[in-house]
Amino acid sequence: MKVSFQGERGAYSEAAAIAHFNETIEPIACESFDEVFAQVEESKVDRGIVPVENSLAGSIHRNYDLLLRHNLHIVGEKIFRVRHCLIVNPGVTLNDVKRVTSHPQALAQCEHYIKKLGASVEPAYDTAGSAKLLKESRARDTAAIASRRAADVYGMTVLDEGIEDDEANYTRFLILKRAPESISNKPCKTSIVFSLKNVPGSLFKAMSVFALRDIDLTKIESRPIAGKTWEYMFYLDFAGSMNDDVCQRALENLKEIALTLRILGSYPRDV
Amino acid sequence: MKVSFQGERGAYSEAAAIAHFNETIEPIACESFDEVFAQVEESKVDRGIVPVENSLAGSIHRNYDLLLRHNLHIVGEKIFRVRHCLIVNPGVTLNDVKRVTSHPQALAQCEHYIKKLGASVEPAYDTAGSAKLLKESRARDTAAIASRRAADVYGMTVLDEGIEDDEANYTRFLILKRAPESISNKPCKTSIVFSLKNVPGSLFKAMSVFALRDIDLTKIESRPIAGKTWEYMFYLDFAGSMNDDVCQRALENLKEIALTLRILGSYPRDV
Repeated sequence: MKVSFQGERGAYSEAAAIAHFNETIEPIACESFDEVFAQVEESKVDRGIVPVENSLAGSIHRNYDLLLRHNLHIVGEKIFRVRHCLIVNPGVTLNDVKRVTSHPQALAQCEHYIKKLGASVEPAYDTAGSAKLLKESRARDTAAIASRRAADVYGMTVLDEGIEDDEANYTRFLILKRAPESISNKPCKTSIVFSLKNVPGSLFKAMSVFALRDIDLTKIESRPIAGKTWEYMFYLDFAGSMNDDVCQRALENLKEIALTLRILGSYPRDV
Repeated sequence: MKVSFQGERGAYSEAAAIAHFNETIEPIACESFDEVFAQVEESKVDRGIVPVENSLAGSIHRNYDLLLRHNLHIVGEKIFRVRHCLIVNPGVTLNDVKRVTSHPQALAQCEHYIKKLGASVEPAYDTAGSAKLLKESRARDTAAIASRRAADVYGMTVLDEGIEDDEANYTRFLILKRAPESISNKPCKTSIVFSLKNVPGSLFKAMSVFALRDIDLTKIESRPIAGKTWEYMFYLDFAGSMNDDVCQRALENLKEIALTLRILGSYPRDV
């Protein structure tokens, strides 16, 4: 099974894909999120995996935009703990490390650790890419910050693991497929995107279609629509699947209220 | 008036502060968001400015965490369009540019433009910092991507402006102060954070306190609380101020339902 992801080989997205499926998948590295979506759409791969929210950084609106622009189905989710590793060329020890290289966001998330190490920092284009470049340079005074998967892919050594300052660092990934899958009997979640006229009470009305049916919401987020000052887009996840009559009726009801409604998919819940 | 912000001199946060106040303020550069909050709390500066959401990248949860951890007041907001500039050392022309340097996120946001230019990319720690380093290096084959403000601060030349692929790129900044300000007569917004037990319908109940009083919501976002699988935190902004009886009554009502409630401030709405 081919699974496309954004980033260099060894990226956190690749690690999440392996954790969700298993070691037998063939991960396909893409330069951009657009390319991940395009590869799934053109059947060049079987699945795509994209991050949609991180516990520290928030929702990645870009990928919600792409979900709306493409006609793919969400068939799964993976909640993946971001555990940054200090990665070096084989034989290098902690005492040798004078510089640390990674994506600025990863460097910022390991600020205290790097300070204690007394190392200088050097920004890189991405986390796994910093490990790849370090491998090529053969430098013995530098460490990269990336996933354990990146160390495995490039045959490098993990000197330390879980070096992030805040360990409540989780990313939620979605698994995308061209055709929908038959819905599992496991507890499911359904993701939708809808828009409303911005009049007082409109969101309250929209939410009543779930509350009246005791459907549990697991995510809600509003987003102003660019260029349309008085309209809002909402991302909403709820417990249940499109196999449940009650969920179908709630969405029929929502259509009466919403300006637009798109059902992105029902999929087994990751707990 | 001293205003602290995160980043190097010329950062987008500094540009937003100038746009919100005026040229007479004294911008104080801080290494981290924590430092911005600490400087306001310790009265070393008069105001702080921090980004809380971007139209492409989403909410910056980190700054909501800091709002909860510190006891500051939101006294204003600024919605600032991110217009990336191509910045060079004086005398350098577009034909000379072989490399482009900036924060990876800015490089990604200008991907098409850089491709058309046929330049290679070099990641930097931040946008304004890339302009500063370029100035120091005196390189004549490299351009930085940063704000127009950064070009002004470092005495460099703007070769092109608005080079981002997606022009719907806005960041919302909050202005922080140690003591609350008397509330303006202009149209106001109030920001609150509250938590709820995750039982079906709890958010619906919480929202009814606004809907029953025709109070318009301008933002809502749920966030799972780390380590507490069944509790959620909500960020909510509504039209109105704590000077309005109806808003005070809505929040009194919300206290009966919420596990925790924090009022972050009422402030004039930026339109």
